[in-house]
Amino acid sequence: MELEESGIGEECGLFGCVSAGEWPTHLEVAQVLTLGLVALQHRGQESAGFVTSNGSSPVTYTSHKGMGLVSSAFPPDALLKLRHGNLGICHTRYSTTGISELQNCQPFVVDTLHGKIAVAHNGELVNSKALRKKVMRHGVGLSTGSDSELITQLLALTPPMEELDTPDWVARIKNLMSETPTSYSLLIMFKDVIYAVRDPYGNRPLCIGRLVPISKLHSTGAEEEDTEGWVVSSESCSFQSIGAKYYREVLPGEIVQISKHGVQSLCIVPRPEGDLPAFCIFEYVYFARPDSIFEGQMVYTVRQRCGRQLAIEAPTDADVVSTVPESATPAALGYAQQSGLPYTEVLCKNRYVGRTFIQPNTRLRQLGVAKKFGVLTDNFAGKRVVLIDDSIVRGNTISPIIKLLREAGATQVHIRVASPPIRFPCYMGINIPTKEELIANKPEFKDIAGYIGADSVEYLTVEGLISAVQEGTASFQDKICSGKMVGHCTACLTGKYPVELEW
Amino acid sequence: MELEESGIGEECGLFGCVSAGEWPTHLEVAQVLTLGLVALQHRGQESAGFVTSNGSSPVTYTSHKGMGLVSSAFPPDALLKLRHGNLGICHTRYSTTGISELQNCQPFVVDTLHGKIAVAHNGELVNSKALRKKVMRHGVGLSTGSDSELITQLLALTPPMEELDTPDWVARIKNLMSETPTSYSLLIMFKDVIYAVRDPYGNRPLCIGRLVPISKLHSTGAEEEDTEGWVVSSESCSFQSIGAKYYREVLPGEIVQISKHGVQSLCIVPRPEGDLPAFCIFEYVYFARPDSIFEGQMVYTVRQRCGRQLAIEAPTDADVVSTVPESATPAALGYAQQSGLPYTEVLCKNRYVGRTFIQPNTRLRQLGVAKKFGVLTDNFAGKRVVLIDDSIVRGNTISPIIKLLREAGATQVHIRVASPPIRFPCYMGINIPTKEELIANKPEFKDIAGYIGADSVEYLTVEGLISAVQEGTASFQDKICSGKMVGHCTACLTGKYPVELEW
Amino acid sequence: MELEESGIGEECGLFGCVSAGEWPTHLEVAQVLTLGLVALQHRGQESAGFVTSNGSSPVTYTSHKGMGLVSSAFPPDALLKLRHGNLGICHTRYSTTGISELQNCQPFVVDTLHGKIAVAHNGELVNSKALRKKVMRHGVGLSTGSDSELITQLLALTPPMEELDTPDWVARIKNLMSETPTSYSLLIMFKDVIYAVRDPYGNRPLCIGRLVPISKLHSTGAEEEDTEGWVVSSESCSFQSIGAKYYREVLPGEIVQISKHGVQSLCIVPRPEGDLPAFCIFEYVYFARPDSIFEGQMVYTVRQRCGRQLAIEAPTDADVVSTVPESATPAALGYAQQSGLPYTEVLCKNRYVGRTFIQPNTRLRQLGVAKKFGVLTDNFAGKRVVLIDDSIVRGNTISPIIKLLREAGATQVHIRVASPPIRFPCYMGINIPTKEELIANKPEFKDIAGYIGADSVEYLTVEGLISAVQEGTASFQDKICSGKMVGHCTACLTGKYPVELEW
Amino acid sequence: MELEESGIGEECGLFGCVSAGEWPTHLEVAQVLTLGLVALQHRGQESAGFVTSNGSSPVTYTSHKGMGLVSSAFPPDALLKLRHGNLGICHTRYSTTGISELQNCQPFVVDTLHGKIAVAHNGELVNSKALRKKVMRHGVGLSTGSDSELITQLLALTPPMEELDTPDWVARIKNLMSETPTSYSLLIMFKDVIYAVRDPYGNRPLCIGRLVPISKLHSTGAEEEDTEGWVVSSESCSFQSIGAKYYREVLPGEIVQISKHGVQSLCIVPRPEGDLPAFCIFEYVYFARPDSIFEGQMVYTVRQRCGRQLAIEAPTDADVVSTVPESATPAALGYAQQSGLPYTEVLCKNRYVGRTFIQPNTRLRQLGVAKKFGVLTDNFAGKRVVLIDDSIVRGNTISPIIKLLREAGATQVHIRVASPPIRFPCYMGINIPTKEELIANKPEFKDIAGYIGADSVEYLTVEGLISAVQEGTASFQDKICSGKMVGHCTACLTGKYPVELEW
Repeated sequence: MELEESGIGEECGLFGCVSAGEWPTHLEVAQVLTLGLVALQHRGQESAGFVTSNGSSPVTYTSHKGMGLVSSAFPPDALLKLRHGNLGICHTRYSTTGISELQNCQPFVVDTLHGKIAVAHNGELVNSKALRKKVMRHGVGLSTGSDSELITQLLALTPPMEELDTPDWVARIKNLMSETPTSYSLLIMFKDVIYAVRDPYGNRPLCIGRLVPISKLHSTGAEEEDTEGWVVSSESCSFQSIGAKYYREVLPGEIVQISKHGVQSLCIVPRPEGDLPAFCIFEYVYFARPDSIFEGQMVYTVRQRCGRQLAIEAPTDADVVSTVPESATPAALGYAQQSGLPYTEVLCKNRYVGRTFIQPNTRLRQLGVAKKFGVLTDNFAGKRVVLIDDSIVRGNTISPIIKLLREAGATQVHIRVASPPIRFPCYMGINIPTKEELIANKPEFKDIAGYIGADSVEYLTVEGLISAVQEGTASFQDKICSGKMVGHCTACLTGKYPVELEW
Repeated sequence: MELEESGIGEECGLFGCVSAGEWPTHLEVAQVLTLGLVALQHRGQESAGFVTSNGSSPVTYTSHKGMGLVSSAFPPDALLKLRHGNLGICHTRYSTTGISELQNCQPFVVDTLHGKIAVAHNGELVNSKALRKKVMRHGVGLSTGSDSELITQLLALTPPMEELDTPDWVARIKNLMSETPTSYSLLIMFKDVIYAVRDPYGNRPLCIGRLVPISKLHSTGAEEEDTEGWVVSSESCSFQSIGAKYYREVLPGEIVQISKHGVQSLCIVPRPEGDLPAFCIFEYVYFARPDSIFEGQMVYTVRQRCGRQLAIEAPTDADVVSTVPESATPAALGYAQQSGLPYTEVLCKNRYVGRTFIQPNTRLRQLGVAKKFGVLTDNFAGKRVVLIDDSIVRGNTISPIIKLLREAGATQVHIRVASPPIRFPCYMGINIPTKEELIANKPEFKDIAGYIGADSVEYLTVEGLISAVQEGTASFQDKICSGKMVGHCTACLTGKYPVELEW
Repeated sequence: MELEESGIGEECGLFGCVSAGEWPTHLEVAQVLTLGLVALQHRGQESAGFVTSNGSSPVTYTSHKGMGLVSSAFPPDALLKLRHGNLGICHTRYSTTGISELQNCQPFVVDTLHGKIAVAHNGELVNSKALRKKVMRHGVGLSTGSDSELITQLLALTPPMEELDTPDWVARIKNLMSETPTSYSLLIMFKDVIYAVRDPYGNRPLCIGRLVPISKLHSTGAEEEDTEGWVVSSESCSFQSIGAKYYREVLPGEIVQISKHGVQSLCIVPRPEGDLPAFCIFEYVYFARPDSIFEGQMVYTVRQRCGRQLAIEAPTDADVVSTVPESATPAALGYAQQSGLPYTEVLCKNRYVGRTFIQPNTRLRQLGVAKKFGVLTDNFAGKRVVLIDDSIVRGNTISPIIKLLREAGATQVHIRVASPPIRFPCYMGINIPTKEELIANKPEFKDIAGYIGADSVEYLTVEGLISAVQEGTASFQDKICSGKMVGHCTACLTGKYPVELEW
Repeated sequence: MELEESGIGEECGLFGCVSAGEWPTHLEVAQVLTLGLVALQHRGQESAGFVTSNGSSPVTYTSHKGMGLVSSAFPPDALLKLRHGNLGICHTRYSTTGISELQNCQPFVVDTLHGKIAVAHNGELVNSKALRKKVMRHGVGLSTGSDSELITQLLALTPPMEELDTPDWVARIKNLMSETPTSYSLLIMFKDVIYAVRDPYGNRPLCIGRLVPISKLHSTGAEEEDTEGWVVSSESCSFQSIGAKYYREVLPGEIVQISKHGVQSLCIVPRPEGDLPAFCIFEYVYFARPDSIFEGQMVYTVRQRCGRQLAIEAPTDADVVSTVPESATPAALGYAQQSGLPYTEVLCKNRYVGRTFIQPNTRLRQLGVAKKFGVLTDNFAGKRVVLIDDSIVRGNTISPIIKLLREAGATQVHIRVASPPIRFPCYMGINIPTKEELIANKPEFKDIAGYIGADSVEYLTVEGLISAVQEGTASFQDKICSGKMVGHCTACLTGKYPVELEW
C-alpha cells in the first residue's frame, strides 16, 4: 500500500504467445494474450499494446495500442482485429515520466530491410544516453524517448547490413547485448519466431509456460505432443488464467527462440567474470504477484519468510499483529506465526475510492489516506497493535493510518517494515521518488517513530531480506543453474549497483 | 465471492448531506455527497444520481445522473454543476432487471403543486403492483417501472390536495407508510429539509452521522456547536471517508427531519401489534461493508462470530483453515480462532480480471472462475484444507476452486459455509436467482459435497446465524430501542416473510 | 444565416412510421425512422429520441434517446435494439431553455391503466402554466418541464377513468384539444396505432407520406396494394430520402389514425367560429427545408417569390445581387430575376468552423462572424452589391459581413431583407430573443443602415410577405380544404396572436 | 459532389505560424493554428496533429494528435497543452490507404543529434520505395509507411554527420530535394525556425500570410512594424479566419525560412532544364476552397471561367442551367452567364445525411445518392435542364440524380462537366480510383449519356481547361516569377507526368 501511494512502480509487463502445430490452429492467440496481459496488469496500468503475426508468408502484422487498463485499451473490436494471429507479443506499461502518450506504447514495430520486427521491453538501459547518441550519430532520428525504440533501431542498424533473406537476428541480439549489460527482458518477434531475451544479470524476470488442453492442465504426465502453444511472461502468475503449465525461467543472459516448433535455447551470453546475477530483489518484496514463481520459489512464501525474519529481528511486546492491506498480508501472517501473537485485521480497504475525480477541499484533504480505509475497531480497541507494512518510502501515508488506529482505541501502534529502508535511486526500470523525498534520507529518519507517530518502528535488515530470499533458491541453483551462484540486486537499499552506472 | 458470481446483489445505496448553520456555509456538500456515495459503491455499481438544493428562496435544485461507477458517472464538470448545493441526496443503483437506463436512475425529482421534491429509495415495495394500479387508476401515467417514481407520485397525490405554502409532507409520508409496510429506506428532499424514513419493519438500513471539523473528529467531547453538517447513509462505513461521527440509526418506522437546524425525530410509525422488526439478515452475512455498524455492532464482528459458531457446529479434522477472498475472511479467521487450526491464504485474487470484455472461447471457458485466482501452492500442498465461504448460491463457482486446490496438492478440501442455504426468493430489494437455480432446491443438494467435488460440505444453521447476529444487539435493544425486541428477516433462508406478500 | 447566429430556432421535428401488411413485414422501421429524422435534423440538433412498438400482443415498446445529432445519438447498437419495431415515432429537439438534458428528450412514454403510450410534440402550449397547475392539483407530480410530459399526463388523467380493454384515446385526444387551442402537432403511439394530430389552428406542420417499392417511387399510377408502409413527418422533405411519396397534409384540427390497415381521418376539431387557421409563416421564411411542401406549394418557391416581391417593393440601383449563404439564396435569385440585376456569389461558407471548441481570444473575437466566410473578391470588387438576407434579428452579425465586403472592394453594400422586422416574442414553439434584444425594437433601428454600416437597408412588408405566401395556396384551399380560408400566424411580426395568450 | 462520392481526395493540409517580436508575445499561436487548420479541413478529415515549440532555450516541443475533424481531435485540454508555443506547425490528413491510425498522423517529430525536428508533408514522393530501401539499407528501421517519417529520417541521416551546435539544415533540405523531385510541400520546424519548402515542380501549393492587428487588416498601408506573426498554409483561404493578409506564394523549388525575425527566401532549387512547373490542375478544378488564391488568381474565378469555356465548347439547347451542389456552382454560374440561359437551383443538399451510421438495407440502398438531395421541383418541372458537374469519376452517382430530375418532371437532362475525363492514376498525392474503376476507361464511356441516363454528356477539353486556368496567370508570371513560364500537372487527364515515374 505504502509503495503504491508513494509512486514506486514497476514499469512493464511482457507477455507473448506462439500457437504450436501447423497453422492456423484452433488456439485463439489474441485471447490468450489478453488474459495473459490482464494477469500482469499490476506491473503497469497506463497503456497496453499488442502485435500479432500470422507467421505465414506473406507475413502480416496486426497491432493495437490503447491507453489505460487492458480492459479499456482493448475493446472488443480491437480483439477481433487481432484474432488471426498465430503468434504475438504484448506489453503493459507504467511510465516513469509524466509523458504518457499512445506514441510511447510498446511493442515498437519497425520495418527493416528484412521485414518488420516488433520489440517489447521491460527494464531500463543503464547506458541509454550513450546508445541514443550513437544511434543518432549514425543518422537515425528517434521518434520517442523509449528504450524500446532505441533497442529496435540498434537491432536494425547492427552491421553487417547483410541483404539475406533470413537476417541473422541472433547475431544482432548478441551484438546488442554486448553494447548494454542491463536491465532488460525482451520479446522480439520476427515473422514466425519470438526471441525471449534476458540480460546477463537477469535483472528483470521472464519465464516460459506451456499451453496444454485444459483437461490435462494438472495431469503430471502431460506428453509433449499435447502442447497447444507456448507462452512467455514477466511472471508465472499469468499462466493460471490461461491454462498454461510453468515450464522454466529464461536464464540470465539467455536467448530463447520460441516458434511453433517449440522452445530452443540459442545461447547464454555470460556476465563479466566474477559478477553475480542481479535479479531485482524488490520483485520479491513488492512488485510481483504473490503467486508468481521466481528462481524456484513462490513470492508469497518469500514474503512470509520476510515476516518471520522480521519477528526474529524485531520482536514486539504487543497483543495483535496486523497488516496494511493488501500487499503486506503474507509478511504479517509470517510475523504472527513466528511471534505467536494472534493475527487480526484492523483495516478494510475501499477499493473504489481511488478512482474518483474529486479534488478534495481542505477539509477533506486533512483526512488523507484514511479516506481509503475502514477501521475494524472491535478487533483492536484497547489493544497494542503491531502493524506490518511492506515498505515505508516517504513516510507520509503510514502516519494518518497510525492516527486512525489510535483514535479508534489502539493503546499502542508499533510499525514493523518487512524490507529495509530505501535509500538510493534505481536506474534499472523502477520508478522511485528522488533521494531527497525518501524518508530514509531525511533528518527526520533519526526519530522515525516520532515523525510518523508510532510507538516504535523497525525495519528488516538487508541481511535478513537476502537470507529470506535466498533460503529458497538452493534447489534452483543446483538443478536449473548447475551450481552457479545466485545473486540479487539490492541497489536501492545498499547503493551497490550491479554494473558501473556510466557504462 | 460466491454471491458476487451468482448475481446476488443489493439494489441501492442512499446518502444525504445537509450543511449546518447559516447558508451558504463553507461545507462543499457536493464533495461530501460524492465521497459518501463512493463508500457505498459496493451496494450498486450500475448508475449514480445526485440532487442538490440551495435550500434558500427561490429554491433551485440541481441534478446529475450517470451510468456506471460514481467515478465515471460524475466527471469533474458534473461536480462543478452541483457545488452550490447546501443540501442534497444521492443514490447508487444496481438494477434487478435487465433494463439499465439513465431514466431509471434515482433520485427521482418531480414538480408538485408545492414545489419540487426529490426521492431516493432503497428496497422494494411488497405491494408495488397494487400501488401502481391505484396511481394509474387515479389518472397518473408512470414513466418508469421504478418504485422510486411510484413513491414520489404517491406522495404527490395523497389527499387532501391542500394548496398551502407549506404542504404537510409528514402527513403524506405517514399516509404512504400506511399504504405499504415494507421494504423501504427513503430520503425525501423538499426545499431545505431531508426526511429520512425507514419502514416499520426496518428492513433496509439507514443511519445518521455528524460532520465535525476534522481536527475534532476523534475527540470524545465534541460539542454540538462544532457540527458542520449532518449526513444520512445506508451504511456507517461512509462516515470515515468524509470525516463524520456516527450519530445513530434511524429506527424502524421512524421519520427523521434533517435540516440546517439539526436532526429531529418526527414520529415512529408502529408495526402491527406482535410483529417484530425485520432487518435483512443478509446485510450482516454478505452485503454490508465489514466496518459498518448495525444495531450497535460492527458487521465484521458478526461475521467473525458466524465463523466461530460454524466451527462449533461443524468442526473439521484438517490442517489449515482458509478463505475464498475477500468477503469470507472474517468468518475464516473466526473459524480458525475457535477451532485452533492455523489460518492461511490459499488463493490470491486478480482484481483486474473481471473487467475485460473478452468472451472466452471454449478452451478458456473451461477454466471457469479459476481465471480469477492465483493459487498459493506452498501454503497448502500436502495438507487438508477447510475452506470457508460466505454462501453457496448456485454451486457452480465453488466447484472449479476446489478442483484448483486439489490439483495444486490439497489432500482434502472441506467446505464450510458461514450462512444457511438460500432457498427462497426475496421480494424486498435483493436480487436472488430463481428458486430453480438455487442449489439448495436442486436434487443434487442431497449430495452437495459430491456435486461440487468437496470432501465434505456443511452450512451454518439458521439458529446459529441468528444467535451470532443477536448476541451483539442486546445493548442496542436496551439503550436505543428501550427494550423493544430485535428481529431479523430470514425469509430467503426460511420462507418466513415479515408481511404477507399480497399485502 | 442571420437567424442561426441569433439563436432563433425551431423546437422540434416529428417523424413516425407504420409498416403495412401483416407483421412482421420486411420493412425496417428503425432505418426508415432514422433516415426520416435525419432529414428533419435542421429542426433540432440537441437531442433525438425513438420509440418503436412491435404492435403485436403482448405489446413491447423499445426506446432510445441520446444527446446531439441523430448520428451521434444513435450509434449502431441503438438501431439494432430498435429493429424489431413494426411501428414507431421519433423526435429531434432544440431546447428553448438552457436546460438540455437527456431527461427532456422526447418521445415521452408513460404506463397508464390501459398500457403504455408514447407522445412526441412539436410546438408550445399557450396555456401550459395553467395546465401544469391543473395536473398537479390533481396530484400528479411532473418530472420535467416539457409540454410533452404534460400532454401525456393530461391524456392519462382525462376522465372518465374507464377500465376497458381498449380505452377511448380519441375521446381523450379531443378532450385535450378542448383544453388547449395551440400550438401542437402530435404523434401519439398506442400499441399498433399512431394518432397524428394537428392543433385547430394548424400552427405547426404535419404531413403524411406513403412508402412504396423504390422501383415504383415515381410511377404515377402506384396502386394502393403496393403500399409498404406509412410515414408521418413535420416536413415532406424527409420523404425523398426514404422512398416515400407525398400523400397529404394533416389538416388543422384533424386527428388521423395510422395503422397497418392504412390512414383514416377520425375527425376535425373546429376552431372558434370566425378564427382563421394560423400556420406559422416563419416556416416559409426560414425554418423549413426549401424542398418541403406546405399547403400545396414548395417552400423554395415561396422564398423566391419573397425575393421577387422585395425587388418590387425595394428596388436598388446596384451592379450585382448576392446572398448570405445558404438560406437566403432562393430570395436572392428571385430578387435578381425580378430586378434584372446579375446574380453572383460574394461569400463562401466554411462549414467546419462552427464545430471547434476554441474560445477565441480578444484578437480573434474581433473577427466575429467573418471567420465563417471566405470572400470571393473577384466577383464584386469595384461593384455596388445588393445583399439579400432572410432576416435581421439582432443586427450584430450582418455588420461584420458588410465590413468584410467593403474592405474587399465593394463600393456600396445595400441590405435587402426578405421578411419583415421581428418585433414580438413567439409563444408557440419558436425560440426568439427577448423583445429588448430584437434590433427592430431598439432605438438604433431608426438608422439601421448606419448602425450596421450598410448604404441602405430595406425589409419586405408584412403584406408583401403574406401575398408571396398566399399567392400559391389557392388550389390548396379549393381542393384540399374545400374552400376554407387560409390564414397564417404573423404574431412575431405584427403582435397579432392567433389566440388570446392567457387562454 | 461527384468527386466526393467517388473517393477522390486530397491528402493533406499544412499550416504553420510563427509569432513575431520578442517572445513570449501575446499572440496565441495554438489558437491561430487551430483556426487556420479548420479552414483547411476540406483537405483532410481523418486526423489532425499539432506541434508547437517555445522557440527558446532550452527548446521544448509540445504535440497533440487526434483522429477525426480538428474539432474532435482537439478538445479544449489539448489546446491548453499547446498554448505556450511561440511557433508551431499542424497538419490535417486524409489517408490514401485503409490504414487510418494515430501513429500515421503528422507532423512527425524525431530527436536527432542536433535536437528535435518536426516535419509535416503534403504530397507523395514519386520515388518513395527506392528511398525507403536506401534508408533501411543504412540500418534505419521505419515505424510507419508514411512519407513524412521517411523525409524526416532522410533529413536526419544526410551526411556529413556534423556535430555542430547549429546543423546545416538547409544543406540537408537541398540534399533531400536532390534525391526526390516531387511531390511535396513541407513545413520543417527546428527550434525557433520553420522552413517552408515546395518541390521544384511546385506540384502542391503553399503560401505565406502576415498576421496584422485586426484593426489594420484591411488598411492598404500596413507597415511592417505592425506584423504580429507569420503564417504559412496550403491555401490562402485560411488567412481570412485568423486575420492574416495574403503575403505571397512559396515558389516552386523555394526554401523559405520563417522566424520571429521575418520571412527570408534561402534559395530556389531549379528543375531540370526545359521542365516546366507542374502545379496540380485539380487544385483549381476541385480540391481547393473557392476563395483561395493560386498563382495570383482566385480559384472561384477559374472555375467560373471553366464554366464559360464549357458553354463555348458545348452549348446546349435547354431552358435552365443548374448545378450539382455545392462544388459545381461557380462553373454553373459561368455557364449560365456565357450561354445566356437562366440559372436556377434544382437540388438542395441535406448536409446531415452523410454522418449517420446507418447501413441501409436493400430497399433504401436502391435510393442511392438521391438520399442526400431534396428536389426543387417547381424550378424545373416541364423544362430542359443543363446540369453542370465538376467531374464524373465513376459515373455511378450522377445517374440517380438524373433519374431523380426526370421523375420530378425535367423533360431533358443534359450533363456538362467542367473538367476533362480522368483517365490516369495520380502518384503525387491525390487519391483516385484505380484505372479500371474510372468511367472514362470503361467500354460504357462510348455511350456515356446512355449509361448514366442523360440526354447528352459533354466534357471540357484539356485545352479548354488549361486556357481557363492560364488566362489568369499572366501577371503572376511577370511580376512574381520574373517571366518564367507557368505550367500545370495534367497527368490524371493526359498521362503526361511531370517526371518519369521510376525516378
